[in-house]
Amino acid sequence: MSKTPLPPLAISMGEPAGIGPDLILRLFAERQALGLPPFIVYGNAAFLEARARRLGLALAIAPAAAATAAQMFATALPVADIAGAVPDRPGEADAGAGRVVIEAISRATNDTLAGACRGVVTAPIHKAALYSAGFAHPGHTEFLASLCARPGETLLPVMMLATEELRVVPATIHVPLSRVPGLLTPALLEATARIVAHDLRTRLGIARPRLAMTGLNPHAGEGGSIGTEDRDIIAPAVATLRRENIDVHGPIPADTLFHLPHWRQYDAVIAMYHDQALIPIKTVAFDSAVNVTLGLPIVRTSPDHGTAFDLAGTGRGSTASLLAAIRMADRMTGGLPTAPGMAA
Amino acid sequence: MSKTPLPPLAISMGEPAGIGPDLILRLFAERQALGLPPFIVYGNAAFLEARARRLGLALAIAPAAAATAAQMFATALPVADIAGAVPDRPGEADAGAGRVVIEAISRATNDTLAGACRGVVTAPIHKAALYSAGFAHPGHTEFLASLCARPGETLLPVMMLATEELRVVPATIHVPLSRVPGLLTPALLEATARIVAHDLRTRLGIARPRLAMTGLNPHAGEGGSIGTEDRDIIAPAVATLRRENIDVHGPIPADTLFHLPHWRQYDAVIAMYHDQALIPIKTVAFDSAVNVTLGLPIVRTSPDHGTAFDLAGTGRGSTASLLAAIRMADRMTGGLPTAPGMAA
Repeated sequence: MSKTPLPPLAISMGEPAGIGPDLILRLFAERQALGLPPFIVYGNAAFLEARARRLGLALAIAPAAAATAAQMFATALPVADIAGAVPDRPGEADAGAGRVVIEAISRATNDTLAGACRGVVTAPIHKAALYSAGFAHPGHTEFLASLCARPGETLLPVMMLATEELRVVPATIHVPLSRVPGLLTPALLEATARIVAHDLRTRLGIARPRLAMTGLNPHAGEGGSIGTEDRDIIAPAVATLRRENIDVHGPIPADTLFHLPHWRQYDAVIAMYHDQALIPIKTVAFDSAVNVTLGLPIVRTSPDHGTAFDLAGTGRGSTASLLAAIRMADRMTGGLPTAPGMAA
Repeated sequence: MSKTPLPPLAISMGEPAGIGPDLILRLFAERQALGLPPFIVYGNAAFLEARARRLGLALAIAPAAAATAAQMFATALPVADIAGAVPDRPGEADAGAGRVVIEAISRATNDTLAGACRGVVTAPIHKAALYSAGFAHPGHTEFLASLCARPGETLLPVMMLATEELRVVPATIHVPLSRVPGLLTPALLEATARIVAHDLRTRLGIARPRLAMTGLNPHAGEGGSIGTEDRDIIAPAVATLRRENIDVHGPIPADTLFHLPHWRQYDAVIAMYHDQALIPIKTVAFDSAVNVTLGLPIVRTSPDHGTAFDLAGTGRGSTASLLAAIRMADRMTGGLPTAPGMAA
């Protein structure tokens, strides 16, 4: 079977004072041993050259467009060059570089929406460094969602933490715990589950995704005796979704659901809040979990760590999560096959 | 070195309609292969004989007192017999049996307080079956605490979930999640940490216990931008405890703290609420975690599971957690040595 070459993956370089560029450069240097799919980095080429020198990596770095990236990938790192003064100063965020960071995300996303790239992998950003450059979004993901929305449309981006076999979705994320019970509504849980089911089907080839929802309270509320949200909010959402023929189970007590033999019975678990989702996946897969944004018209993945200013420029710090993010984006966009036994 | 024989462990038989008696009988049948320390079961001897027959276990069961239990242990199961009509009907709670269940706990505790036994292991109870027999406590542990309290004294029983190497303590337990932020006070966290530090020292031989406290909010609140409790309640409690020379660290974001290499740096982690504590330990040690009650004048452990009515009388169901509870009680009362490398 002859195959049309796939477009490259787009990687936004992220905060230049952080570890993101380092990890991209280090993985590119090992691209052949790792069998990486072609990608193009959206960022500043001169900065990337300086960072590569600092890391002692002898790499060719060349300006490129998405269309030419794949053929160049064996010999040089293709960079969609964004002009600007981006100093190579590990650990020191630079206000002037913020515009380049923002434009890198924006162009990577737009090229993917246009089909020139097949998915976006984003390196971590440092929000504080972007505010002076006009960044006005609560976070990275909301910015992506606004770039992807058509006029008048509001997308609900859904964060999934995933390894090759375990996936968890927090229904609420960066909010105080005291606000979580009030934020949980049947509408939110239903919209979240619909997006998860849809994207597992279309992006991961799981014909009939089997989902679980955690309870909010200890023992999922024990029928209302330890809190009422499990009975009055989560259970009705599950019932509604099941009437729509979405295979959702719950509310299930969170402390028993994440026992691995239980967890593996589900293609994804929808948890009610940040720690309930992140504790189990970081406990079992600290370095290799990937942040996948569902609910967008494009595939977007990112490593599940921050900018790690203290490690930038040192050559230390694990490439595992960025590598996993690249592989996950590859898998979700026609590169790697979907997981064995999970495809339709 | 000649040793005075240790007193036996006391095991309360728990709910007769549940799996507790089965697990006790099955472990007793394997006592030699498992190298179990002598124990005496507080419960109804005729019922235990009937349950043993149902399970096809050919066991001798003999009435005993704590003082004679050890010498009989090789040949018969010593039972501190509590008179009463206790039917052998798996899965069907019997109101009449409730008094026996309550008295079993009470006598096991009193004999341990008196020094005739060296620690209590409690099999699971079914609270609803005890109410008609006059049980008026929020739970099993509160009942133990009331039995142990001297006149006018109020004990703070502290629940610790533990494996041989990992320990976690929820500062709040069976309360709705929405009530957790309001229940957390510096006084509660300080009292909890003092008990944990004291009991790890005195019961587990850890000379200077190293403790961690989780944050309540995502990322431990990010300095107050995602909730204020981490900054205003947990951090001050940690500061107070450190001034008392207790080695406590935190608040630490819960999703990174429970990554095993991090978690293992601490002798115990104090978590803020039920799921935050139980998700990680059940994720890594579903069957073998033990419930240890700290803050009492006696050692009390219990398996970390319920009555499992559906498994009672079948011979199925894992003995792992009850076995671990016996071993933990043994270790905490002078039987097994304390953990390698952790002793003073």
